[in-house]
Amino acid sequence: MTTSIEQNEELQAALEHLYSEVASKDLQPLWTQVRELMTRYPKPAAIPWLWQWKTLLALAERAGELVSVERGGERRVLALSNPGLNGLPFATSTLWAGIQYLNPGEVAPAHRHSPGAIRFVLQGEGMWTTVNGDACDMQRGDLVLTPGGTWHDHTNPGSEPVIWFDGLDLPTIQALDAVFFETFPDLNQQPNPLHNLSELTFGGRGTLPVEVATSTTHSPLLVYRWEDTDTALSALLKVQGTPIASLKFVNPATGQSVMPTFGCEIHRIIKGGHTRPGRKVGSSVFVIFQGSGYSVINEQKFDWSAGDMFVTPSWATYEHVAFEQSDLFTITDRPLLETLGLFRQEEEQEPQPIKSQFQAK
Amino acid sequence: MTTSIEQNEELQAALEHLYSEVASKDLQPLWTQVRELMTRYPKPAAIPWLWQWKTLLALAERAGELVSVERGGERRVLALSNPGLNGLPFATSTLWAGIQYLNPGEVAPAHRHSPGAIRFVLQGEGMWTTVNGDACDMQRGDLVLTPGGTWHDHTNPGSEPVIWFDGLDLPTIQALDAVFFETFPDLNQQPNPLHNLSELTFGGRGTLPVEVATSTTHSPLLVYRWEDTDTALSALLKVQGTPIASLKFVNPATGQSVMPTFGCEIHRIIKGGHTRPGRKVGSSVFVIFQGSGYSVINEQKFDWSAGDMFVTPSWATYEHVAFEQSDLFTITDRPLLETLGLFRQEEEQEPQPIKSQFQAK
Amino acid sequence: MTTSIEQNEELQAALEHLYSEVASKDLQPLWTQVRELMTRYPKPAAIPWLWQWKTLLALAERAGELVSVERGGERRVLALSNPGLNGLPFATSTLWAGIQYLNPGEVAPAHRHSPGAIRFVLQGEGMWTTVNGDACDMQRGDLVLTPGGTWHDHTNPGSEPVIWFDGLDLPTIQALDAVFFETFPDLNQQPNPLHNLSELTFGGRGTLPVEVATSTTHSPLLVYRWEDTDTALSALLKVQGTPIASLKFVNPATGQSVMPTFGCEIHRIIKGGHTRPGRKVGSSVFVIFQGSGYSVINEQKFDWSAGDMFVTPSWATYEHVAFEQSDLFTITDRPLLETLGLFRQEEEQEPQPIKSQFQAK
Amino acid sequence: MTTSIEQNEELQAALEHLYSEVASKDLQPLWTQVRELMTRYPKPAAIPWLWQWKTLLALAERAGELVSVERGGERRVLALSNPGLNGLPFATSTLWAGIQYLNPGEVAPAHRHSPGAIRFVLQGEGMWTTVNGDACDMQRGDLVLTPGGTWHDHTNPGSEPVIWFDGLDLPTIQALDAVFFETFPDLNQQPNPLHNLSELTFGGRGTLPVEVATSTTHSPLLVYRWEDTDTALSALLKVQGTPIASLKFVNPATGQSVMPTFGCEIHRIIKGGHTRPGRKVGSSVFVIFQGSGYSVINEQKFDWSAGDMFVTPSWATYEHVAFEQSDLFTITDRPLLETLGLFRQEEEQEPQPIKSQFQAK
Repeated sequence: MTTSIEQNEELQAALEHLYSEVASKDLQPLWTQVRELMTRYPKPAAIPWLWQWKTLLALAERAGELVSVERGGERRVLALSNPGLNGLPFATSTLWAGIQYLNPGEVAPAHRHSPGAIRFVLQGEGMWTTVNGDACDMQRGDLVLTPGGTWHDHTNPGSEPVIWFDGLDLPTIQALDAVFFETFPDLNQQPNPLHNLSELTFGGRGTLPVEVATSTTHSPLLVYRWEDTDTALSALLKVQGTPIASLKFVNPATGQSVMPTFGCEIHRIIKGGHTRPGRKVGSSVFVIFQGSGYSVINEQKFDWSAGDMFVTPSWATYEHVAFEQSDLFTITDRPLLETLGLFRQEEEQEPQPIKSQFQAK
Repeated sequence: MTTSIEQNEELQAALEHLYSEVASKDLQPLWTQVRELMTRYPKPAAIPWLWQWKTLLALAERAGELVSVERGGERRVLALSNPGLNGLPFATSTLWAGIQYLNPGEVAPAHRHSPGAIRFVLQGEGMWTTVNGDACDMQRGDLVLTPGGTWHDHTNPGSEPVIWFDGLDLPTIQALDAVFFETFPDLNQQPNPLHNLSELTFGGRGTLPVEVATSTTHSPLLVYRWEDTDTALSALLKVQGTPIASLKFVNPATGQSVMPTFGCEIHRIIKGGHTRPGRKVGSSVFVIFQGSGYSVINEQKFDWSAGDMFVTPSWATYEHVAFEQSDLFTITDRPLLETLGLFRQEEEQEPQPIKSQFQAK
Repeated sequence: MTTSIEQNEELQAALEHLYSEVASKDLQPLWTQVRELMTRYPKPAAIPWLWQWKTLLALAERAGELVSVERGGERRVLALSNPGLNGLPFATSTLWAGIQYLNPGEVAPAHRHSPGAIRFVLQGEGMWTTVNGDACDMQRGDLVLTPGGTWHDHTNPGSEPVIWFDGLDLPTIQALDAVFFETFPDLNQQPNPLHNLSELTFGGRGTLPVEVATSTTHSPLLVYRWEDTDTALSALLKVQGTPIASLKFVNPATGQSVMPTFGCEIHRIIKGGHTRPGRKVGSSVFVIFQGSGYSVINEQKFDWSAGDMFVTPSWATYEHVAFEQSDLFTITDRPLLETLGLFRQEEEQEPQPIKSQFQAK
Repeated sequence: MTTSIEQNEELQAALEHLYSEVASKDLQPLWTQVRELMTRYPKPAAIPWLWQWKTLLALAERAGELVSVERGGERRVLALSNPGLNGLPFATSTLWAGIQYLNPGEVAPAHRHSPGAIRFVLQGEGMWTTVNGDACDMQRGDLVLTPGGTWHDHTNPGSEPVIWFDGLDLPTIQALDAVFFETFPDLNQQPNPLHNLSELTFGGRGTLPVEVATSTTHSPLLVYRWEDTDTALSALLKVQGTPIASLKFVNPATGQSVMPTFGCEIHRIIKGGHTRPGRKVGSSVFVIFQGSGYSVINEQKFDWSAGDMFVTPSWATYEHVAFEQSDLFTITDRPLLETLGLFRQEEEQEPQPIKSQFQAK
């Protein structure tokens, strides 16, 4: 007769044998790991983080002196590397973000890739990005799209360096094993002498060409002007009477996100405005276009001023406070999550307590 | 033995008896009428026709003196009555169109109806149309929507009369037995003191509010400014290098027609421009906003200048010639036909011969 | 000094002069007619009406003896002519309906037209309708589509006549001036020897081919079997526990109506079932497939049994009572009205009073 | 004067200093890594792999003896762990897959999670999965959905164990940081006594209820019967005359994938059939439902027979050869990739060479 202790030991031995067998056959038991796989709430590896403009600018300028832009390296960009992501050059689990620097006279080589990019100009003027032959002029505050699959290169014919924010859906496309990359047969495209064709064609306010077919996967409009964005933000604030007005950039042919895989928004917070704390499924990269203030993300305080960039991981609580009227540009995976029925958000009633202060290195 | 003549007479008698029986039972034989019902091409009852501005204006002004705007009559509008439609007050089989005249100080009473309306301002300024409480300011060249089911009234607080073009889908809604009409509980709405709420909220170029839900059956944007339309027309002409540039007004939340039942377009023809002849399924009402020229419709010539209105029935061939740069606003049932898979168009290679000249009465 | 009576007479004279001028210029004053044009509720010209099977059958059989099916007349169909529609061969303002009769050995010539048709077999078997080369076998209770623009002809190779119900969107397409008609180059199509290709390809329950592209304007599935319809009706009744179960036939590639311009439904009422009175925007033609009972439409009672057909105009109140389990097939313009945002319905709480009894002639 | 060697050394030193600074500020230079990030073609970490049924079954049965199904562990499932994925319990980068084993009398506890699941029954009968209160009966070959967010538990009231394949979009939802999990307040749901409500309501072939609203993010139909799938496969083979017929399971209310994040297909290969080699963006898990043959994936040969499971990573070339008529069930991320505009595929003209033979451990 075996005792229950003996039975238990036998069971344990049998289980250990089973687990060993299971592992050797490239299998894993769900029941021992289900609570780690299926978490009560999203547990992103990415953490809230902020990069200061003075750091970004100094290093970008230094790179501008030391590194040339040429075929192979392709672009002079410093990518935000979230400290939670184990050395991956990603800002969040789904978003890649960086600061691109182009010296006077430089032209970055033409290529295309399945990940799409969103460019938001932070400094400089007179340059353009050529997208499938259409030279899109870029100035501070302008948004330029190079959707997945479009040939693109960047030209700075001016006398001052140009700096812009780059946002890509690269981590998402990589997670889906769908990355394709191709260099243009020549070093650069020969753009149409008439610039801004997409804007001239699809840039009407409330109008579209009757007979011009439009793509359905991304916006046919490739450039969005700061002047228009500024006007729309002021108008929305006027109507809403809230501390924050939030706009999303859309495909004018569908009203949907500029790209299906990610999108971009801009937020204007009034002077002294304090937004209600909340959390959303999905992550964002924030770029302070102008203004100053701070954000509290997961109870950690991040002071910011113009040029700073910070990230909010999925389901992190966050709120913003602006010392002066401030404009925050963001890229976000929200459009993708909405399409998949995975988006949800909550707003808290009270500001969250602040536990610690972020110290940028 | 009966002869074949007798047989034939018997058959005829039997057939006549059958047809008589059939008719008495509220039935009809298809085989005797199929070619009239199923025509090789559309055979619209509406005919090409033009109404001259001097006539429209003179009669509208006279009505302005003699007729008051009040509950019951509701609106001071002269409706285009296509001579082909047997006295119906419709411009084409699917479109109602007219000229509305509002004296200084007048306010048209508030009501709503299932047919939707498109207003395009021809003369005057300082007035507004209130749509569900949102006062939409209107100036020459502005487009204002009062979609089906929205409460609306018109206010002219200025010192000059205001004249605008009205286009409705009334014949379509009537053909579908779907007309509903209701008067507002009070004579007029009390609009929000802040005017143009829809424009402030949805009027961004390439942007939409992140958190504001939008209707799906009609545009949430209710007013489209001439300045924007003008800019977009010039831009499209620049890109296309064609004699005509054609824009459609769209719902910014979907990129689709401002309403599902009909829509509106604007066409700019360059000085000396001669458009290629063609024909389309569906009818349009044209309003000459500015310029002069002529159109040839079904081989009939119609001279036009500013303020004139003319109609093109379904499948009529037409082409336009402009003596000076000309802007033609249109309402059309094309969005409906496209949704139903019924739209088709053809372009001819050569201008059509002109057989007769239209003589406005 | 003029008296007010004199002033009034002057005004009347001036108004009469104005109205005369307005009419002579092909214009009409809206203010005198707005309440007739813009009715409080839909005021359809079509009236509730019922056609009895014994009448339909007798006349169809007589036509089968006297009238041949050949190019020119094209089809042997008796069309329901609503007494309210001034002699038009239409069942309602938007729907054409009729009974088609094909003798053994007959083949109706091939043609195509922009209006679409829905066929529902009432009697006979062994025949087929060829749609763009695909021979769709038809038996009692089967539904066969010949969507707008598809070549179609009907073949009865059997030894018994075949009778089916035909429903078309012809009045709608005509109202939109979009009717096109074309005869097939030959008298008939040469169908694929393998019949029912659309059913074999798109007839899965919950499955679709991975690599076969589907049309977006109408259903790629052209035939719906009675056995499946019967099963689905029983299942829905079981779940709902209501006196009536209502199914719509859908495009399996979209879940939408089989065609955008109109659609079809089938309704099973349990023995003794009494449906709640209600009214809807839009009209329907009902075909009693099996069973008996009565319907009250706009307070008028219509007794029905198998083969009878009746119509409900837009916004008519109606309710049904079944003496035995009854199946009612319908065609309806509801899908079109829903697409256009014009559909609405109301359900009353109490059965309506019956004022008069319908007497079929 | 400095020599160019000295200059070069200085530059190298400066660069090293820059890279060190960049890294210390949580940044990364794009230009040194762009070609690894932006690969010419997808470079999935997951590798082609096959798990044999005899192994799966033996280990599942052993687990059935040793491991109880209870709250905490939740489910008795062995998950396929792709050897290329560094120990992650995922079948491919986007798909989780496993074999679930439920003993007679067992009931797995009720819970819900944002990842969705697809179940395909391999062995047993008489059991059901309750989804939001609807008990869905499951037999061999049946497909049952538990879409993201639905409460679900599994009940085996019979006398034999039940085994089914489980497929989840878990890796995708985790990559998007959108995993939520919740246990049901009680251990289990109390299902509706009438089973298969979704099937009774939405299971019609070509029909849908007129008045029942349907969800838009996932299929309202939760169970798909093998009998129907079998019939549809045979029909499609008959029409196509190809060696393989491929069906996808769809939401009957939209014709789209059963879920937006992933989907499922079934493929029937005829006896002796040899499919054309090709490659697609996106990965799949194949389950051999019946039959035998082999597949060549990236030039590696995998023999298979009933119950075996294998995976094809993104952009892997693959082709199948069947020794007897074979049915292969798959889950795939293709619906997601199509929605995002990332799907593409190529078909080769010639069978690929085989370099090595897979040896299951």
